[in-house]
Amino acid sequence: MDVQSLRVNGKRLQSSLQQMATIGATPAGGVQRLTLSDEDKRARDLLCTWLRELGCEVVVDEMGNIFGKRAGRDSSLPPVLCGSHVDSQPKGGRFDGILGVMGALEVLRTLHDSKIETKRPIWLVDWTNEEGSRFAPAMVASGVWAGALERDWAYARKDIQGKTQGEELERIGYKGKAAARKVPLHCYWEYHIEQGPMLEREHKVIGAPKGILCLHWYDVYLEGEANQVGPTPMEGRHDALCAAAEMILKVNELPGRMGGNMVATVGELQNYPNSRNIIPDRVHFTVDIRSWDDEHALRSWELVRQDFVAIAERRGCPIRIEETWRVKHSPFDERLVNRVLETATELGLPAMRMVSGAGHDAGYMNQLTSTAMVFVPSIGGRSHVECENTKWEDCEAGANVLLHCILKSANE
Amino acid sequence: MDVQSLRVNGKRLQSSLQQMATIGATPAGGVQRLTLSDEDKRARDLLCTWLRELGCEVVVDEMGNIFGKRAGRDSSLPPVLCGSHVDSQPKGGRFDGILGVMGALEVLRTLHDSKIETKRPIWLVDWTNEEGSRFAPAMVASGVWAGALERDWAYARKDIQGKTQGEELERIGYKGKAAARKVPLHCYWEYHIEQGPMLEREHKVIGAPKGILCLHWYDVYLEGEANQVGPTPMEGRHDALCAAAEMILKVNELPGRMGGNMVATVGELQNYPNSRNIIPDRVHFTVDIRSWDDEHALRSWELVRQDFVAIAERRGCPIRIEETWRVKHSPFDERLVNRVLETATELGLPAMRMVSGAGHDAGYMNQLTSTAMVFVPSIGGRSHVECENTKWEDCEAGANVLLHCILKSANE
Repeated sequence: MDVQSLRVNGKRLQSSLQQMATIGATPAGGVQRLTLSDEDKRARDLLCTWLRELGCEVVVDEMGNIFGKRAGRDSSLPPVLCGSHVDSQPKGGRFDGILGVMGALEVLRTLHDSKIETKRPIWLVDWTNEEGSRFAPAMVASGVWAGALERDWAYARKDIQGKTQGEELERIGYKGKAAARKVPLHCYWEYHIEQGPMLEREHKVIGAPKGILCLHWYDVYLEGEANQVGPTPMEGRHDALCAAAEMILKVNELPGRMGGNMVATVGELQNYPNSRNIIPDRVHFTVDIRSWDDEHALRSWELVRQDFVAIAERRGCPIRIEETWRVKHSPFDERLVNRVLETATELGLPAMRMVSGAGHDAGYMNQLTSTAMVFVPSIGGRSHVECENTKWEDCEAGANVLLHCILKSANE
Repeated sequence: MDVQSLRVNGKRLQSSLQQMATIGATPAGGVQRLTLSDEDKRARDLLCTWLRELGCEVVVDEMGNIFGKRAGRDSSLPPVLCGSHVDSQPKGGRFDGILGVMGALEVLRTLHDSKIETKRPIWLVDWTNEEGSRFAPAMVASGVWAGALERDWAYARKDIQGKTQGEELERIGYKGKAAARKVPLHCYWEYHIEQGPMLEREHKVIGAPKGILCLHWYDVYLEGEANQVGPTPMEGRHDALCAAAEMILKVNELPGRMGGNMVATVGELQNYPNSRNIIPDRVHFTVDIRSWDDEHALRSWELVRQDFVAIAERRGCPIRIEETWRVKHSPFDERLVNRVLETATELGLPAMRMVSGAGHDAGYMNQLTSTAMVFVPSIGGRSHVECENTKWEDCEAGANVLLHCILKSANE
């Protein structure tokens, strides 16, 4: 057959996504399928069933990562790996993660239907606990597989009820025998929703991220002086919440002040004693800075850190800052990024080069092998929320791009 | 004897305060004696014992208010009432409330020692649940006694464990038989720590508050749009925490902008979903505005409310504002306020007229009868904290002012 004209079955892809969306469905139309929950187990079972129907060898490793292995003509060659994750955020959406797994499954089904053999094996993967919302950190199982994190440390991570990741893997029957250890790969593909508004704003259907932004996390602790608000004049107050408010605005203004591709956010804040008639004497808040340019992010942080120190001093609120996490920006393989753009053009789909602001398992794979991602638009840029949505025709379009990117890689 | 030269026993007052401070003592040197707790019961029992030792009639009313009644020469005359409260904040100090009860007790003991009879009866009172930190609202039992609040509504107030105020009154054996209902009074005196830094700043020992500031409480609710921070550009974000930060600073700047005697505070804030990599989509915070001038407070609120609406609109964060509580300013009896100043002068104590920024049971008594308060300095202006402190000689000085103010009133 003419491989160029091969297309995925959009209706089947839609149906698989809809079936997965019933597992952990929330009343508001979203999905809650926390990693290693009963819902995660049901989604995994269904995935394994579907993989076996295609004649794939299904292998579960010690971290619960599920590999569906489709043979190639030459099984001695490193495989093309593609996939994402079936776990979701609490009150998450129907596309984040699962689109990349169902998209890869649809590629395997399309090849199966047309009895297409590829030179190299093609492996589908479902990475355990990409989200990190039940057990921190995120992307833990691809991190272990890549050799960046320790397996036993990952096992010992606890959820808020004190259950460990290792126990829960065992409980749902997905603590496999295979080593969670990297093997030589030809390349890695991950198909995902954009989770931002850029494709929609630019009227594009396909995004080709040139890589993942760097990520700098800080924790800021402020002290103030608690007093009854009524008898305490404004002069001489040491109000930790007011100091924090100034700092939050400095963070918000930072990207505009520094220019360049960058976002900066305060997402979390705790205020103590948090009583309406006592001046706050203790505040903790987080800072998240992301940029394509690691140095730019560091220079920006240095600027805002100096602002923080000056504000803390002026308000008499001692400050302590912790650097919590720092991940360098991760540029994908330029050849594969171009392949996404070329393939979209061949398929008549408007596409653009962009960046990924969110982290993905692709970040760890990028440390091991040539890696790239395919993005499709998120309606309104919304994600990690129950109203997360992507048009069915865009899901299909992205899967077709993934199909031909994988085909090209698997026949190299 | 020469009544003019009568003085309280400072050592005995100190000893009583120290004994009370052992009941609910915290490791950091403060007191935790929540209303209707076992500690409150022990402090009440001790107070009743001490009152009976003086030959006072002890009456407990339906709200658990304890009255220690010392007879006058003419028991048909309305009594002079004086007191405060023995309950404390969680992790509160050794002076707030209890100083006013032990001070009044020391006055009765001094009169008893010197066998001084007064024309009018003198009643000491311990008001139940002044603090309002276990069962909201504050000052509930003086409010019921004054006829401003309903007894059964007060009984039904619950603590965070779901126990009602009525049940807990019964449990500790302080649900008395006497009606919690106002009777004619000649006047009301309350002795209290300042809870602010003004006396210390002005090097005064005695404060004569001309009344209690008005109190306006508001609750502000903001909505934003939650999204993954990484892929969401700064332009087009609707960050509810940034909107709140701007508003917090507007509240903080309000007194400077409006001038006049006024304080404005944001003490409480909740942020949702409160995750470091999700843009906040829901914030609740409180506003507390106090002034001597009700109209000034209202004009100030109107100004800051307009700021809030403009900020909310600019940031695309819908706002909802609730007016939660509004208490008018409460000017004390000018004659009694002057009596505090005159008495201090007679005793050679530097004194000043001021305002009370905090609410007190005196606020409800001021609705019924001529009322005034005696303040002594809080070291560093600190209160509602474990390090709350007042010099022993200042405690004694304030009790002497209270003694002579009461004597003058009781012989009118």
